[in-house]
Amino acid sequence: MYELVIANKNYSSWSLRPWVLMRALDIPFTERLIPFPGGNSRSTYLPFSPSGRVPALREGEVTVWDSLAIVEYLAERHVGVWPEDGIARAWARSACAEMHSSFTTLRVICTMNCGIRVDLAERPPQLTADIDRLGALWNEGLARFGGPFLAGVEFTAVDAFFAPVVFRCQTYGLTLGGEADRYVSRMLARPALVQWYEAALAETFREEGHEDEARRAGRWTADLRATA
Amino acid sequence: MYELVIANKNYSSWSLRPWVLMRALDIPFTERLIPFPGGNSRSTYLPFSPSGRVPALREGEVTVWDSLAIVEYLAERHVGVWPEDGIARAWARSACAEMHSSFTTLRVICTMNCGIRVDLAERPPQLTADIDRLGALWNEGLARFGGPFLAGVEFTAVDAFFAPVVFRCQTYGLTLGGEADRYVSRMLARPALVQWYEAALAETFREEGHEDEARRAGRWTADLRATA
Repeated sequence: MYELVIANKNYSSWSLRPWVLMRALDIPFTERLIPFPGGNSRSTYLPFSPSGRVPALREGEVTVWDSLAIVEYLAERHVGVWPEDGIARAWARSACAEMHSSFTTLRVICTMNCGIRVDLAERPPQLTADIDRLGALWNEGLARFGGPFLAGVEFTAVDAFFAPVVFRCQTYGLTLGGEADRYVSRMLARPALVQWYEAALAETFREEGHEDEARRAGRWTADLRATA
Repeated sequence: MYELVIANKNYSSWSLRPWVLMRALDIPFTERLIPFPGGNSRSTYLPFSPSGRVPALREGEVTVWDSLAIVEYLAERHVGVWPEDGIARAWARSACAEMHSSFTTLRVICTMNCGIRVDLAERPPQLTADIDRLGALWNEGLARFGGPFLAGVEFTAVDAFFAPVVFRCQTYGLTLGGEADRYVSRMLARPALVQWYEAALAETFREEGHEDEARRAGRWTADLRATA
């Protein structure tokens, strides 16, 4: 049995990736949610993850401590993690790896905060560049592999990897152009994303570091989260 | 036949990773080295890589445009990319993914510059934290899987992923403690790393952005690179 260690659903974009993949593929797991403690969270997560970061997947003696490594670990054990077609698979892996290391400005300015709506204060050129690249990438995948998902007819790891960006599009009102915007709507209606979103809205704990980041991004037009 | 598109050997840590893996595993490929143009390099690399970044691996119609995706692409086609043992493989993948997304301070302050030696001007706490984590990770792998490589008796993708850090240890005089320091010495003597290093020293082009980064790091005690 897998145990998936994650942080707050409202904030933790990296936790969302393996969680939504496992839910979408019906891979059973136990969830252990440990909220961000505020400040340096490393010591909080160190008992569960040697890097002091989440997500971490645990199975017996094995701990897999990064979202992309978790995906590959699952891909060795379950059908459907990656597209069956080799070309689509190479594309999907490249796109996931790019998400894993890049889109820094998007990640810094538009931090994931599922339950609020923000009118962005500014859009520096590097943010526009990140959004343009995202739109190009998504539209390429949707056109090339025929949709409705990024690498073809099935929800695979590359959709899971961009699920946090889908929530960012909703929170910050980002539009990507073309089919990519319809993809955002489709993704927001997927049962696994709906489940995560509803749990995020139900969370009553707040972590000031994440809240500050979202306040710096711009004026909040809505806060849909439950209050304590 | 594979074509691997890379940037300057002296500077491009991400290029080194698949290059040294393919050399170490005797996977034949054609190298296409396109030096950093200075300034924003995206348009230079865009004809070869949809993200505008290198490395990119090309095989027929397929372009794989990130170091970690390249590794997984090769792992589907060649024996020995990952450790055979499943537990070592999960560990190696986690360590690679951590390298891919983390160690930011080390990467920013101690940029890869194979041919110089630098006396670091300062070691902020976050740099020390990155070095401590590296030492812990390497020593864990070397102890757990018995060495001489990070995940056991063979050179695998996890060694390739940390090869740029090995060169950084040499350039900036970093020590990690215990067996990890002996691992650095062993790695520097590997034929594939020696080949890369010698080619890096022979390069005569310089890119001011990278040179500036290395000047900011501290006082240069040696510059072993060829001059034009």
